[in-house]
Amino acid sequence: MGHFVKTIFAVIATSTVSFAYAGTAEDIAARVETFEAAFNSGDAAAVASHYTTDSALLAPDTARIDGREAIQGLWQAYVDAGVVDLKLTTVDLDDLGGIANEIGTYTLTAPDGNGGMVQAGGKYIVVWKADDSGVWHLHWDIWNSTP
Amino acid sequence: MGHFVKTIFAVIATSTVSFAYAGTAEDIAARVETFEAAFNSGDAAAVASHYTTDSALLAPDTARIDGREAIQGLWQAYVDAGVVDLKLTTVDLDDLGGIANEIGTYTLTAPDGNGGMVQAGGKYIVVWKADDSGVWHLHWDIWNSTP
Repeated sequence: MGHFVKTIFAVIATSTVSFAYAGTAEDIAARVETFEAAFNSGDAAAVASHYTTDSALLAPDTARIDGREAIQGLWQAYVDAGVVDLKLTTVDLDDLGGIANEIGTYTLTAPDGNGGMVQAGGKYIVVWKADDSGVWHLHWDIWNSTP
Repeated sequence: MGHFVKTIFAVIATSTVSFAYAGTAEDIAARVETFEAAFNSGDAAAVASHYTTDSALLAPDTARIDGREAIQGLWQAYVDAGVVDLKLTTVDLDDLGGIANEIGTYTLTAPDGNGGMVQAGGKYIVVWKADDSGVWHLHWDIWNSTP
């Protein structure tokens, strides 16, 4: 009987986890796209809605920011500063079942301070978290620049 | 019988996961300490040994670096540049069972380019991975500065 239970246990455990998050990569890719579109349309509130309510944002040269509302403020500042054409690319995605760790790269275009525009880019890590209905949100978000 | 199996399944699942990683926070704290000590003694090879062999390092203003050997090179460059007094502080640790996500802060002292030294600091995210014998290694490592 013991062997039978163990097998059932193993099957249930594996199948439950994989079924629940079969579409993680696709779901997160879709969220990255709507995040990008929200920023490129200048909608900082929509960008912030992609974060968990208790998220942490670790932006370069800025103190850590906690919570969706405060995070919206930073994205609004980037919109107000004239940053445009944000492009996000997932490079690595580690699906841990309810949490997913992502490494990605970004490019953007920003004012160069002399009336012109300049392209910049870098790399990031996002820790994603699925809510009870399976919608993924950014929980931890950090990035830095690449020359 | 079904109810009995479910309870057993729940008990096995919970206890196995928590037993395997009961000491995660302590184990990772110890690794952070030996990482810090290795750097502060100028031993880049010992620093690099804290990373998984297929780790990714995302340092500011530097292209992504993959693999323990290449990562050692960057830490050697920091040693050679005269960076000292590295202090790491874990702020958040999310134990996912075999993987642990950490947010931390750091301070260090570095040459100011004019013959003096200056203190700097910032924040980081490390994705830790436990190897088969339960030893934790940095798998993904990214940081940026805080003014």
